[in-house]
Amino acid sequence: MDVILKYMRPVAVIGIGKTAFGAFPDRDLRSLAVEAIRHAMDDTVIAPLEVQAFYLGNFAGPSFVGQNHLAPYVGTAAGFEAIPCTRIEDACASSGSAFFHAWQSVAAGIYDVVAVAGVEKMTSQTTPRVTEILAGAGDMSGEGRAGATFPALFAMIARRHMYQYGTTREHLAAVAVKNHANGAKNPLAHMRKVITLEQAMAGKPISDPLTVYDCSLISDGAAAVILVPLDQAKRYTSRFARVLAVAQTSDHVALDTKKDITEFPAVRSAGEKAYQMAGLRPGEIDFAELHDCFTIAEIVASEDLGFVEKGQGGPFAAGGCSAIGGPKPINTSGGLKSKGHPVGATGVGQICDIVMQLRGDAGERQVARHRIGLAQNLGGSGATCVVTILEGAQ
Amino acid sequence: MDVILKYMRPVAVIGIGKTAFGAFPDRDLRSLAVEAIRHAMDDTVIAPLEVQAFYLGNFAGPSFVGQNHLAPYVGTAAGFEAIPCTRIEDACASSGSAFFHAWQSVAAGIYDVVAVAGVEKMTSQTTPRVTEILAGAGDMSGEGRAGATFPALFAMIARRHMYQYGTTREHLAAVAVKNHANGAKNPLAHMRKVITLEQAMAGKPISDPLTVYDCSLISDGAAAVILVPLDQAKRYTSRFARVLAVAQTSDHVALDTKKDITEFPAVRSAGEKAYQMAGLRPGEIDFAELHDCFTIAEIVASEDLGFVEKGQGGPFAAGGCSAIGGPKPINTSGGLKSKGHPVGATGVGQICDIVMQLRGDAGERQVARHRIGLAQNLGGSGATCVVTILEGAQ
Repeated sequence: MDVILKYMRPVAVIGIGKTAFGAFPDRDLRSLAVEAIRHAMDDTVIAPLEVQAFYLGNFAGPSFVGQNHLAPYVGTAAGFEAIPCTRIEDACASSGSAFFHAWQSVAAGIYDVVAVAGVEKMTSQTTPRVTEILAGAGDMSGEGRAGATFPALFAMIARRHMYQYGTTREHLAAVAVKNHANGAKNPLAHMRKVITLEQAMAGKPISDPLTVYDCSLISDGAAAVILVPLDQAKRYTSRFARVLAVAQTSDHVALDTKKDITEFPAVRSAGEKAYQMAGLRPGEIDFAELHDCFTIAEIVASEDLGFVEKGQGGPFAAGGCSAIGGPKPINTSGGLKSKGHPVGATGVGQICDIVMQLRGDAGERQVARHRIGLAQNLGGSGATCVVTILEGAQ
Repeated sequence: MDVILKYMRPVAVIGIGKTAFGAFPDRDLRSLAVEAIRHAMDDTVIAPLEVQAFYLGNFAGPSFVGQNHLAPYVGTAAGFEAIPCTRIEDACASSGSAFFHAWQSVAAGIYDVVAVAGVEKMTSQTTPRVTEILAGAGDMSGEGRAGATFPALFAMIARRHMYQYGTTREHLAAVAVKNHANGAKNPLAHMRKVITLEQAMAGKPISDPLTVYDCSLISDGAAAVILVPLDQAKRYTSRFARVLAVAQTSDHVALDTKKDITEFPAVRSAGEKAYQMAGLRPGEIDFAELHDCFTIAEIVASEDLGFVEKGQGGPFAAGGCSAIGGPKPINTSGGLKSKGHPVGATGVGQICDIVMQLRGDAGERQVARHRIGLAQNLGGSGATCVVTILEGAQ
């Protein structure tokens, strides 16, 4: 940590770009990624040949669409020439990690202009195998062999959270209702559908206690951002966002190696590192995008990041504290639940959503206090976590 | 480039570790990677908890063995705790790229102790699909759809090289004979078998003009190194190697987008950047490990890196110039051809082989002049290239 702080220069996000998230049978992986990168470059007026390095987050392109070696495959199509093009895979935190490494390289003074994208194309001929492909983010030699898919793993987490802290089905459903309400107002969201608490409670069971309304979506999509040193940001735009902190940490992949499955040490340590780097306390975060791959994951993350006391994430959500009008708005984009979860795109997508709020560009979903936002991107059942804190330009 | 040079501090490789390369039906991916990492840590007396970041190069673990999210999966088993664990995929240059990013992070002052590993487990239930899985490093929407596997792509390169420069089947076979002779003396090589020129010429055809003796092997294996700043290296060992340069560049994935398929622009640009960074000319490199996924690839690389004039790589090899006793020994390890090519392990494996020579530890294969060695790691048919130049401690 001390090593890091000694050398860093401040970094800014100067351009953001997203595709819509959804099921797009006629689109391929590369065209989605290139669309997001072009939006990000157009957002700030950067030409491809100015980009000095390219990081691409992708979880399972080879499994979903049979294409590997994705960084130069996408990078050259975006117009980047003879630069390092690197794909990073850290499960559902792939593009959060790509952002971390891109930020490091600019902060350390290695490059001045870096592009980061995340992409996943999940609807394909292999979609019937999606649960098996996603299970590869867990421990296949143990969890996988036992048939424990991700809904099953997070169902165990939810059940234990209920047992230890009194969390209820209503608490989980409240997260789904909130995120669907937010996503319904997001033109780029996958499922723009308001649901009631009754509907969420009566959802089709997936893995008890989780119903279909507790689970995120199988989506196609891409997101991209452009990073430069803060002292160069104004040359490009007045609408930049300052990166106050990024921290990536890891933990064991298998859930059965964890002491207490109701908390994720990687989320806690990434959060602590990020708060320390930013010089902020959890209470000073105005709003956040949390990794709600399942409703219980948002509840656990809100606790592990210190937004609420351990065990109180359920009542916190059910009481409206994380609604757009509440004291700590969470997942104003709709979250993975309603916006969609094209796995490799999710981390950078969260950063884009935070920057939109910081700029005051979130329309109907705009939060009142929008000076500092936090994004939390989780890989697997907590083996990787990336926490990013951003501040608006004003 | 200027941006890079301004901020960098010198970096040293203080520990190296490799498993044997071969077909190991009873070993899993994780145990291979952890074995290599432990060898590297024992080589220099580093404890896992001293490691501040971990980079893992792996091409297709999800396809070969169904396991994704490999960085924390391997890293936690190696004893790393709460640090960034990141998997990098850049086809056959995955661990060369992992080394590049690890080096960057130490050179830039972000971390003081970084572990880098590469691993691939290719013999598995999916081995019958190996050609299809490897084809994912090319352009599946074009080359793949046309049925152009990697042997086919490199056969076209060889055929065109023959047409433009008069390269012959004997030239290709000479590379195979040399690399088999070297690998036969390497206790960690996959195929320790001396072959004659006649045998190589009479090999079973794979894709004309390439025979089975022109193609690298399908191997399991892992390799690892530990990096620290040069000014801290002596605390750990007197047997460190200084990293003089590392450069990664990229190019289009599909062969049909290249102007001239007898040369790889990414190899040329990575070589030029590395020479510039090291302040060296090609003639000042004492020996090299080049990416001989096919014999023609070694010939092309020896030209693109300036060891020999364009088109003269064939006669150069056939004349003994790249033999262990020649003026520019190439692939003293046996190369991918004889040592084996566990795809994700190859880049870091080359670094280990270079460091062994720099230390004078290569036994029967030891070269006479061993002050400066170069490793060249190629992804796909030239879409990614990483060139590393190392200098011994003396």
